[in-house]
Amino acid sequence: MSGTWLEEQAGIKLDEQAGRLYGIGVGPGAGDLITVRGARIISDLDVLYAPAGKKGAESLALTIVEEYLSPNTEIRTYHFLMNAEPEAKAAVWDEVAQALKDEVAKGHKVGFITLGDAMLFSTWVSLLERIGRQPWLEIVPGVTSFAAIAASSMMPLAMEAQSMAVISCTASEDELEQALRNHDCVVLMKVYGRLDRIRSLLNKLNLLDYALMMADATLPTEQCWRRLDKLEDGLRLPYFSTILVNKNWNTSR
Amino acid sequence: MSGTWLEEQAGIKLDEQAGRLYGIGVGPGAGDLITVRGARIISDLDVLYAPAGKKGAESLALTIVEEYLSPNTEIRTYHFLMNAEPEAKAAVWDEVAQALKDEVAKGHKVGFITLGDAMLFSTWVSLLERIGRQPWLEIVPGVTSFAAIAASSMMPLAMEAQSMAVISCTASEDELEQALRNHDCVVLMKVYGRLDRIRSLLNKLNLLDYALMMADATLPTEQCWRRLDKLEDGLRLPYFSTILVNKNWNTSR
Repeated sequence: MSGTWLEEQAGIKLDEQAGRLYGIGVGPGAGDLITVRGARIISDLDVLYAPAGKKGAESLALTIVEEYLSPNTEIRTYHFLMNAEPEAKAAVWDEVAQALKDEVAKGHKVGFITLGDAMLFSTWVSLLERIGRQPWLEIVPGVTSFAAIAASSMMPLAMEAQSMAVISCTASEDELEQALRNHDCVVLMKVYGRLDRIRSLLNKLNLLDYALMMADATLPTEQCWRRLDKLEDGLRLPYFSTILVNKNWNTSR
Repeated sequence: MSGTWLEEQAGIKLDEQAGRLYGIGVGPGAGDLITVRGARIISDLDVLYAPAGKKGAESLALTIVEEYLSPNTEIRTYHFLMNAEPEAKAAVWDEVAQALKDEVAKGHKVGFITLGDAMLFSTWVSLLERIGRQPWLEIVPGVTSFAAIAASSMMPLAMEAQSMAVISCTASEDELEQALRNHDCVVLMKVYGRLDRIRSLLNKLNLLDYALMMADATLPTEQCWRRLDKLEDGLRLPYFSTILVNKNWNTSR
Protein backbone atom coordinates (compact mmCIF):
# COMPACT_ATOMS: atom_id res chain seq x y z
CA MET A 1 0.00 0.00 0.00
CA SER A 2 1.50 3.31 -1.04
CA GLY A 3 0.70 6.66 0.50
CA THR A 4 -0.50 7.34 4.01
CA TRP A 5 -4.03 7.31 5.34
CA LEU A 6 -4.14 11.11 5.31
CA GLU A 7 -3.05 11.32 1.69
CA GLU A 8 -5.69 8.78 0.66
CA GLN A 9 -8.37 10.66 2.56
CA ALA A 10 -7.42 13.84 0.76
CA GLY A 11 -7.36 12.04 -2.58
CA ILE A 12 -3.67 12.85 -2.86
CA LYS A 13 -1.13 10.26 -3.88
CA LEU A 14 2.40 11.09 -2.88
CA ASP A 15 4.30 11.47 -6.11
CA GLU A 16 7.96 10.65 -5.64
CA GLN A 17 8.59 12.03 -9.13
CA ALA A 18 7.07 15.45 -8.40
CA GLY A 19 9.36 18.42 -8.74
CA ARG A 20 10.29 20.52 -5.75
CA LEU A 21 11.90 23.92 -5.34
CA TYR A 22 13.92 24.88 -2.28
CA GLY A 23 14.97 28.43 -1.41
CA ILE A 24 17.79 27.90 1.07
CA GLY A 25 19.58 30.39 3.32
CA VAL A 26 23.10 28.97 3.72
CA GLY A 27 24.17 31.15 6.65
CA PRO A 28 26.87 33.79 7.12
CA GLY A 29 29.96 32.16 5.60
CA ALA A 30 31.38 29.20 7.51
CA GLY A 31 30.42 25.90 5.85
CA ASP A 32 29.08 24.39 9.08
CA LEU A 33 26.76 27.30 9.92
CA ILE A 34 24.19 26.09 7.41
CA THR A 35 21.27 24.22 8.99
CA VAL A 36 21.16 20.42 9.06
CA ARG A 37 18.02 20.64 6.89
CA GLY A 38 19.74 22.88 4.36
CA ALA A 39 22.75 20.56 4.12
CA ARG A 40 20.55 17.46 3.70
CA ILE A 41 18.43 19.03 0.98
CA ILE A 42 21.47 20.33 -0.91
CA SER A 43 23.04 16.87 -0.93
CA ASP A 44 19.99 15.50 -2.76
CA LEU A 45 19.34 18.09 -5.49
CA ASP A 46 19.17 17.56 -9.24
CA VAL A 47 20.00 21.19 -9.99
CA LEU A 48 21.45 23.95 -7.83
CA TYR A 49 21.24 27.66 -8.70
CA ALA A 50 23.74 29.94 -6.98
CA PRO A 51 24.09 33.70 -7.20
CA ALA A 52 27.50 35.10 -8.15
CA GLY A 53 28.60 38.50 -6.89
CA LYS A 54 30.40 39.48 -10.05
CA LYS A 55 30.03 38.01 -13.51
CA GLY A 56 32.23 34.93 -13.61
CA ALA A 57 33.31 35.27 -9.98
CA GLU A 58 32.96 32.36 -7.64
CA SER A 59 29.81 32.42 -5.54
CA LEU A 60 30.48 32.67 -1.78
CA ALA A 61 27.17 30.89 -1.19
CA LEU A 62 28.41 28.06 -3.44
CA THR A 63 31.70 27.80 -1.54
CA ILE A 64 29.71 27.38 1.70
CA VAL A 65 27.73 24.38 0.42
CA GLU A 66 30.59 22.71 -1.49
CA GLU A 67 31.19 20.01 1.13
CA TYR A 68 27.54 18.88 0.99
CA LEU A 69 27.17 18.71 -2.79
CA SER A 70 26.57 15.45 -4.58
CA PRO A 71 28.53 14.85 -7.81
CA ASN A 72 25.13 14.22 -9.43
CA THR A 73 23.95 17.79 -8.88
CA GLU A 74 24.22 20.16 -11.80
CA ILE A 75 25.35 23.64 -10.73
CA ARG A 76 24.33 26.86 -12.45
CA THR A 77 25.61 30.23 -11.27
CA TYR A 78 23.83 33.46 -12.09
CA HIS A 79 25.06 37.02 -11.97
CA PHE A 80 22.34 39.23 -10.51
CA LEU A 81 23.72 42.62 -11.61
CA MET A 82 23.37 44.20 -8.16
CA ASN A 83 24.37 47.65 -9.41
CA ALA A 84 22.55 47.60 -12.75
CA GLU A 85 19.41 49.48 -13.83
CA PRO A 86 16.14 48.12 -12.39
CA GLU A 87 15.00 46.86 -15.82
CA ALA A 88 18.19 44.89 -16.39
CA LYS A 89 17.97 43.36 -12.91
CA ALA A 90 14.30 42.49 -13.37
CA ALA A 91 15.09 40.74 -16.66
CA VAL A 92 17.59 38.44 -14.92
CA TRP A 93 15.15 37.69 -12.10
CA ASP A 94 12.39 36.93 -14.61
CA GLU A 95 14.70 34.56 -16.46
CA VAL A 96 15.88 32.72 -13.33
CA ALA A 97 12.35 32.49 -11.87
CA GLN A 98 11.17 30.92 -15.13
CA ALA A 99 14.14 28.54 -15.22
CA LEU A 100 13.36 27.39 -11.65
CA LYS A 101 9.70 26.78 -12.50
CA ASP A 102 10.71 24.88 -15.65
CA GLU A 103 12.94 22.56 -13.60
CA VAL A 104 10.09 21.83 -11.17
CA ALA A 105 7.77 21.09 -14.10
CA LYS A 106 10.31 18.53 -15.35
CA GLY A 107 10.03 16.78 -11.98
CA HIS A 108 13.45 17.89 -10.76
CA LYS A 109 14.52 18.77 -7.26
CA VAL A 110 15.97 22.23 -7.67
CA GLY A 111 17.56 24.50 -5.11
CA PHE A 112 18.40 28.19 -4.97
CA ILE A 113 20.97 29.24 -2.36
CA THR A 114 21.45 32.63 -0.80
CA LEU A 115 23.82 34.01 1.87
CA GLY A 116 22.55 34.43 5.42
CA ASP A 117 18.81 33.95 5.85
CA ALA A 118 16.58 33.32 2.83
CA MET A 119 13.99 36.02 3.67
CA LEU A 120 16.03 38.90 5.10
CA PHE A 121 17.99 41.18 2.75
CA SER A 122 18.06 38.32 0.28
CA THR A 123 18.13 37.99 -3.50
CA TRP A 124 15.80 35.03 -3.13
CA VAL A 125 12.87 37.34 -2.30
CA SER A 126 12.98 38.85 -5.80
CA LEU A 127 12.46 35.32 -7.13
CA LEU A 128 9.74 34.51 -4.58
CA GLU A 129 7.83 37.62 -5.74
CA ARG A 130 7.77 36.10 -9.22
CA ILE A 131 7.09 32.50 -8.22
CA GLY A 132 4.52 33.05 -5.46
CA ARG A 133 3.47 30.71 -2.67
CA GLN A 134 3.39 27.21 -4.14
CA PRO A 135 2.75 23.74 -2.71
CA TRP A 136 5.98 22.52 -4.37
CA LEU A 137 8.05 25.27 -2.76
CA GLU A 138 9.90 25.04 0.55
CA ILE A 139 11.95 27.84 2.08
CA VAL A 140 14.73 26.90 4.51
CA PRO A 141 15.77 29.67 6.91
CA GLY A 142 19.40 30.40 7.72
CA VAL A 143 21.59 32.15 10.27
CA THR A 144 21.69 35.90 9.55
CA SER A 145 25.00 37.76 9.33
CA PHE A 146 24.23 39.85 12.42
CA ALA A 147 23.59 36.75 14.56
CA ALA A 148 26.98 35.44 13.41
CA ILE A 149 28.68 38.76 14.19
CA ALA A 150 27.14 38.84 17.66
CA ALA A 151 28.32 35.27 18.31
CA SER A 152 31.86 35.76 16.94
CA SER A 153 32.39 39.06 18.76
CA MET A 154 30.54 37.86 21.88
CA MET A 155 28.51 41.07 21.82
CA PRO A 156 24.83 40.35 22.48
CA LEU A 157 21.86 41.90 20.72
CA ALA A 158 18.47 42.84 22.22
CA MET A 159 17.07 40.90 25.16
CA GLU A 160 13.79 40.78 27.08
CA ALA A 161 11.80 44.01 26.58
CA GLN A 162 14.50 45.71 24.48
CA SER A 163 14.08 46.45 20.78
CA MET A 164 16.37 46.18 17.79
CA ALA A 165 16.51 47.83 14.38
CA VAL A 166 18.29 46.52 11.31
CA ILE A 167 19.04 49.28 8.82
CA SER A 168 21.31 49.84 5.84
CA CYS A 169 23.89 52.64 6.01
CA THR A 170 22.52 53.72 2.63
CA ALA A 171 19.53 55.15 4.54
CA SER A 172 19.30 58.90 5.11
CA GLU A 173 21.08 60.59 8.03
CA ASP A 174 17.68 61.24 9.65
CA GLU A 175 16.57 57.62 9.41
CA LEU A 176 19.86 56.35 10.82
CA GLU A 177 19.75 58.83 13.71
CA GLN A 178 16.13 57.98 14.47
CA ALA A 179 16.91 54.24 14.56
CA LEU A 180 19.89 54.87 16.85
CA ARG A 181 17.81 57.04 19.18
CA ASN A 182 14.73 54.79 19.32
CA HIS A 183 16.20 51.31 19.74
CA ASP A 184 18.40 49.59 22.34
CA CYS A 185 20.28 47.72 19.61
CA VAL A 186 20.94 48.69 16.01
CA VAL A 187 22.51 46.63 13.25
CA LEU A 188 24.06 48.94 10.65
CA MET A 189 24.54 47.02 7.42
CA LYS A 190 26.51 48.01 4.31
CA VAL A 191 29.04 50.20 6.11
CA TYR A 192 31.39 50.02 3.11
CA GLY A 193 32.29 53.53 1.91
CA ARG A 194 30.21 55.19 4.65
CA LEU A 195 32.37 54.59 7.72
CA ASP A 196 33.35 58.22 8.40
CA ARG A 197 29.75 59.39 8.26
CA ILE A 198 28.57 56.60 10.58
CA ARG A 199 31.39 57.21 13.07
CA SER A 200 30.49 60.92 13.23
CA LEU A 201 26.88 60.03 13.89
CA LEU A 202 27.79 57.51 16.61
CA ASN A 203 30.10 60.08 18.19
CA LYS A 204 27.36 62.73 18.15
CA LEU A 205 25.03 60.31 19.96
CA ASN A 206 27.75 59.19 22.43
CA LEU A 207 27.49 55.63 21.14
CA LEU A 208 31.07 54.95 20.01
CA ASP A 209 31.77 52.97 23.20
CA TYR A 210 28.74 50.79 22.56
CA ALA A 211 29.54 49.76 19.00
CA LEU A 212 31.82 47.36 17.19
CA MET A 213 32.44 46.59 13.56
CA MET A 214 33.02 43.23 11.96
CA ALA A 215 33.90 42.13 8.45
CA ASP A 216 33.67 38.66 6.90
CA ALA A 217 32.18 37.15 10.08
CA THR A 218 32.88 33.39 10.48
CA LEU A 219 35.18 33.35 7.42
CA PRO A 220 38.98 32.86 7.74
CA THR A 221 39.31 36.56 6.82
CA GLU A 222 37.09 37.68 9.75
CA GLN A 223 38.15 40.99 11.32
CA CYS A 224 36.70 42.79 14.35
CA TRP A 225 37.20 46.41 15.43
CA ARG A 226 36.12 47.04 19.04
CA ARG A 227 37.31 50.63 19.33
CA LEU A 228 35.62 52.64 16.59
CA ASP A 229 37.08 55.80 18.14
CA LYS A 230 40.60 54.51 17.43
CA LEU A 231 40.64 53.17 13.87
CA GLU A 232 43.82 53.52 11.83
CA ASP A 233 43.72 56.19 9.14
CA GLY A 234 42.92 55.03 5.64
CA LEU A 235 41.49 51.72 6.86
CA ARG A 236 40.52 49.60 3.85
CA LEU A 237 37.25 48.00 4.78
CA PRO A 238 36.15 44.67 3.26
CA TYR A 239 32.83 44.73 1.42
CA PHE A 240 30.86 42.70 4.00
CA SER A 241 31.26 45.04 7.00
CA THR A 242 28.59 45.58 9.64
CA ILE A 243 28.42 47.67 12.81
CA LEU A 244 26.50 46.45 15.87
CA VAL A 245 25.34 48.95 18.48
CA ASN A 246 24.04 47.86 21.89
CA LYS A 247 23.39 50.68 24.37
CA ASN A 248 23.62 48.20 27.25
CA TRP A 249 26.99 46.71 26.28
CA ASN A 250 30.14 48.82 26.52
CA THR A 251 32.65 47.43 24.00
CA SER A 252 35.62 49.38 25.35
CA ARG A 253 35.51 47.72 28.76
CA MET B 1 54.98 15.28 16.69
CA SER B 2 51.97 16.86 18.31
CA GLY B 3 50.58 20.30 17.52
CA THR B 4 50.83 22.21 14.27
CA TRP B 5 53.60 24.47 13.06
CA LEU B 6 51.56 27.54 13.91
CA GLU B 7 50.95 26.41 17.46
CA GLU B 8 54.64 25.71 17.97
CA GLN B 9 55.58 29.11 16.58
CA ALA B 10 53.21 30.76 19.02
CA GLY B 11 54.54 28.65 21.88
CA ILE B 12 51.08 27.15 22.30
CA LYS B 13 50.55 23.45 22.69
CA LEU B 14 47.07 22.31 21.86
CA ASP B 15 45.69 20.81 25.04
CA GLU B 16 43.17 18.13 24.21
CA GLN B 17 42.25 18.01 27.88
CA ALA B 18 41.37 21.72 28.16
CA GLY B 19 37.80 22.55 29.06
CA ARG B 20 35.54 24.35 26.61
CA LEU B 21 32.18 26.08 26.97
CA TYR B 22 29.74 26.39 24.08
CA GLY B 23 26.70 28.69 24.06
CA ILE B 24 24.56 27.24 21.29
CA GLY B 25 21.46 28.63 19.60
CA VAL B 26 19.45 25.56 18.55
CA GLY B 27 17.04 27.32 16.20
CA PRO B 28 13.28 27.84 16.21
CA GLY B 29 11.91 24.39 16.97
CA ALA B 30 12.39 21.77 14.25
CA GLY B 31 15.27 19.41 15.08
CA ASP B 32 16.95 19.88 11.70
CA LEU B 33 16.99 23.69 11.85
CA ILE B 34 19.98 23.67 14.17
CA THR B 35 23.29 24.40 12.42
CA VAL B 36 25.63 21.60 11.39
CA ARG B 37 28.20 23.08 13.80
CA GLY B 38 25.72 23.11 16.68
CA ALA B 39 24.72 19.49 16.04
CA ARG B 40 28.36 18.34 15.83
CA ILE B 41 29.36 20.10 19.06
CA ILE B 42 26.33 18.79 20.95
CA SER B 43 27.14 15.20 19.92
CA ASP B 44 30.55 15.51 21.60
CA LEU B 45 29.76 17.17 24.97
CA ASP B 46 30.53 15.90 28.45
CA VAL B 47 27.76 17.98 30.02
CA LEU B 48 24.78 19.77 28.52
CA TYR B 49 22.81 22.48 30.33
CA ALA B 50 19.31 23.17 29.05
CA PRO B 51 16.79 25.76 30.19
CA ALA B 52 13.32 24.55 31.17
CA GLY B 53 10.30 26.80 30.74
CA LYS B 54 8.55 25.67 33.88
CA LYS B 55 10.01 23.87 36.84
CA GLY B 56 10.12 20.18 35.98
CA ALA B 57 8.73 20.73 32.47
CA GLU B 58 10.57 19.32 29.50
CA SER B 59 12.84 21.80 27.77
CA LEU B 60 11.86 22.56 24.16
CA ALA B 61 15.51 23.32 23.43
CA LEU B 62 16.39 19.87 24.76
CA THR B 63 13.76 18.19 22.56
CA ILE B 64 15.31 19.89 19.52
CA VAL B 65 18.78 18.46 20.15
CA GLU B 66 17.69 15.00 21.32
CA GLU B 67 18.59 13.27 18.05
CA TYR B 68 22.18 14.56 18.21
CA LEU B 69 22.91 13.66 21.85
CA SER B 70 25.51 11.08 22.78
CA PRO B 71 24.58 8.61 25.56
CA ASN B 72 27.80 9.76 27.26
CA THR B 73 26.56 13.32 27.74
CA GLU B 74 25.17 14.21 31.14
CA ILE B 75 22.11 16.46 30.90
CA ARG B 76 21.15 19.07 33.47
CA THR B 77 18.02 21.16 33.08
CA TYR B 78 17.58 24.45 34.86
CA HIS B 79 14.47 26.47 35.56
CA PHE B 80 15.17 30.15 34.97
CA LEU B 81 12.15 31.63 36.79
CA MET B 82 11.18 33.94 33.91
CA ASN B 83 8.42 35.63 35.91
CA ALA B 84 10.20 35.81 39.26
CA GLU B 85 11.67 38.81 41.07
CA PRO B 86 14.98 40.10 39.60
CA GLU B 87 16.93 38.96 42.67
CA ALA B 88 15.61 35.41 42.44
CA LYS B 89 16.41 35.27 38.70
CA ALA B 90 19.90 36.68 39.26
CA ALA B 91 20.59 34.04 41.90
CA VAL B 92 19.81 31.24 39.42
CA TRP B 93 21.97 32.85 36.71
CA ASP B 94 24.84 33.29 39.19
CA GLU B 95 24.56 29.64 40.15
CA VAL B 96 24.46 28.33 36.57
CA ALA B 97 27.28 30.63 35.39
CA GLN B 98 29.45 29.32 38.26
CA ALA B 99 28.52 25.73 37.46
CA LEU B 100 29.51 26.21 33.80
CA LYS B 101 32.87 27.72 34.79
CA ASP B 102 33.48 24.86 37.24
CA GLU B 103 32.90 22.30 34.49
CA VAL B 104 35.39 24.08 32.20
CA ALA B 105 37.94 24.15 35.04
CA LYS B 106 37.53 20.37 35.37
CA GLY B 107 38.55 20.07 31.69
CA HIS B 108 35.04 19.18 30.51
CA LYS B 109 33.35 20.11 27.25
CA VAL B 110 30.16 21.78 28.42
CA GLY B 111 27.30 23.21 26.37
CA PHE B 112 24.42 25.54 27.14
CA ILE B 113 21.55 25.49 24.65
CA THR B 114 18.98 28.18 24.00
CA LEU B 115 16.04 28.48 21.58
CA GLY B 116 16.49 30.48 18.37
CA ASP B 117 19.72 32.45 18.17
CA ALA B 118 22.13 32.53 21.11
CA MET B 119 22.51 36.33 21.22
CA LEU B 120 19.04 37.67 20.40
CA PHE B 121 16.31 37.63 23.09
CA SER B 122 18.17 34.80 24.73
CA THR B 123 18.66 33.53 28.29
CA TRP B 124 22.25 32.74 27.35
CA VAL B 125 23.13 36.47 27.41
CA SER B 126 22.45 36.65 31.16
CA LEU B 127 25.09 33.95 31.57
CA LEU B 128 27.52 35.61 29.15
CA GLU B 129 27.29 38.81 31.23
CA ARG B 130 28.53 36.81 34.21
CA ILE B 131 31.15 34.73 32.36
CA GLY B 132 32.63 37.39 30.07
CA ARG B 133 34.62 36.94 26.86
CA GLN B 134 36.91 33.97 27.41
CA PRO B 135 39.37 32.07 25.19
CA TRP B 136 37.67 28.81 26.20
CA LEU B 137 34.22 30.06 25.17
CA GLU B 138 32.59 29.62 21.74
CA ILE B 139 29.15 30.94 20.82
CA VAL B 140 27.29 29.20 18.00
CA PRO B 141 24.60 31.29 16.32
CA GLY B 142 21.20 29.88 15.41
CA VAL B 143 18.18 30.56 13.20
CA THR B 144 15.93 33.16 14.86
CA SER B 145 12.21 32.55 15.26
CA PHE B 146 11.29 35.38 12.89
CA ALA B 147 13.46 33.97 10.09
CA ALA B 148 11.64 30.65 10.57
CA ILE B 149 8.24 32.36 10.52
CA ALA B 150 9.12 34.23 7.33
CA ALA B 151 10.25 30.97 5.69
CA SER B 152 7.25 28.89 6.82
CA SER B 153 4.70 31.55 5.88
CA MET B 154 6.61 32.56 2.72
CA MET B 155 6.31 36.19 3.78
CA PRO B 156 9.62 38.01 3.28
CA LEU B 157 11.22 40.50 5.64
CA ALA B 158 13.23 43.63 4.73
CA MET B 159 15.25 43.76 1.53
CA GLU B 160 17.78 46.12 -0.07
CA ALA B 161 17.47 49.64 1.42
CA GLN B 162 14.49 48.76 3.65
CA SER B 163 14.71 48.62 7.42
CA MET B 164 13.33 46.27 10.04
CA ALA B 165 12.52 46.56 13.73
CA VAL B 166 12.13 43.72 16.20
CA ILE B 167 10.12 44.73 19.24
CA SER B 168 8.24 43.03 22.05
CA CYS B 169 4.50 43.65 22.39
CA THR B 170 5.23 44.41 26.04
CA ALA B 171 6.60 47.78 24.82
CA SER B 172 4.50 50.92 25.27
CA GLU B 173 1.82 51.88 22.73
CA ASP B 174 3.98 54.83 21.64
CA GLU B 175 7.06 52.69 21.03
CA LEU B 176 5.06 50.13 19.06
CA GLU B 177 3.42 52.82 16.94
CA GLN B 178 6.75 54.53 16.30
CA ALA B 179 8.34 51.25 15.18
CA LEU B 180 5.40 50.53 12.87
CA ARG B 181 5.56 54.03 11.39
CA ASN B 182 9.35 54.19 10.94
CA HIS B 183 10.21 50.78 9.50
CA ASP B 184 9.25 48.82 6.38
CA CYS B 185 9.11 45.58 8.34
CA VAL B 186 8.32 45.00 12.00
CA VAL B 187 8.53 41.77 13.99
CA LEU B 188 6.15 41.94 16.95
CA MET B 189 7.21 39.36 19.52
CA LYS B 190 5.32 38.14 22.61
CA VAL B 191 1.83 38.76 21.21
CA TYR B 192 0.33 36.45 23.84
CA GLY B 193 -2.38 38.27 25.84
CA ARG B 194 -1.94 41.49 23.81
CA LEU B 195 -3.57 40.53 20.51
CA ASP B 196 -6.58 42.88 20.71
CA ARG B 197 -4.40 45.88 21.46
CA ILE B 198 -2.00 45.04 18.59
CA ARG B 199 -4.84 44.48 16.12
CA SER B 200 -6.34 47.88 17.00
CA LEU B 201 -2.99 49.53 16.44
CA LEU B 202 -2.45 47.76 13.09
CA ASN B 203 -5.98 48.75 12.05
CA LYS B 204 -5.37 52.40 13.00
CA LEU B 205 -2.22 52.41 10.84
CA ASN B 206 -3.93 50.57 7.95
CA LEU B 207 -1.50 47.69 8.28
CA LEU B 208 -3.86 44.74 8.89
CA ASP B 209 -3.51 43.65 5.24
CA TYR B 210 0.27 43.62 5.56
CA ALA B 211 0.55 41.45 8.65
CA LEU B 212 0.34 37.79 9.58
CA MET B 213 0.62 35.91 12.83
CA MET B 214 2.31 32.59 13.44
CA ALA B 215 2.56 30.34 16.46
CA ASP B 216 4.96 27.44 17.07
CA ALA B 217 6.76 27.99 13.75
CA THR B 218 8.41 24.82 12.34
CA LEU B 219 6.87 22.62 15.06
CA PRO B 220 4.12 20.07 14.31
CA THR B 221 1.72 22.45 16.11
CA GLU B 222 2.57 25.38 13.77
CA GLN B 223 -0.39 27.67 13.03
CA CYS B 224 -0.59 30.67 10.71
CA TRP B 225 -3.23 33.41 10.55
CA ARG B 226 -3.06 35.46 7.34
CA ARG B 227 -6.16 37.57 7.90
CA LEU B 228 -5.79 39.39 11.19
CA ASP B 229 -8.99 41.32 10.40
CA LYS B 230 -10.95 38.06 10.44
CA LEU B 231 -9.88 36.09 13.51
CA GLU B 232 -12.44 33.93 15.26
CA ASP B 233 -13.73 35.31 18.57
CA GLY B 234 -12.07 34.03 21.70
CA LEU B 235 -9.06 32.67 19.80
CA ARG B 236 -6.76 30.89 22.25
CA LEU B 237 -3.29 31.84 21.22
CA PRO B 238 -0.29 29.58 21.91
CA TYR B 239 2.49 31.12 23.99
CA PHE B 240 5.03 31.44 21.15
CA SER B 241 3.07 33.75 18.84
CA THR B 242 4.64 36.43 16.68
CA ILE B 243 3.25 38.94 14.17
CA LEU B 244 5.24 39.93 11.08
CA VAL B 245 4.45 43.21 9.31
CA ASN B 246 5.84 44.04 5.86
CA LYS B 247 4.45 47.20 4.27
CA ASN B 248 5.49 45.91 0.84
CA TRP B 249 3.78 42.52 1.10
CA ASN B 250 -0.01 42.31 1.13
CA THR B 251 -0.97 39.12 2.97
CA SER B 252 -4.62 39.16 1.92
CA ARG B 253 -3.84 38.82 -1.78
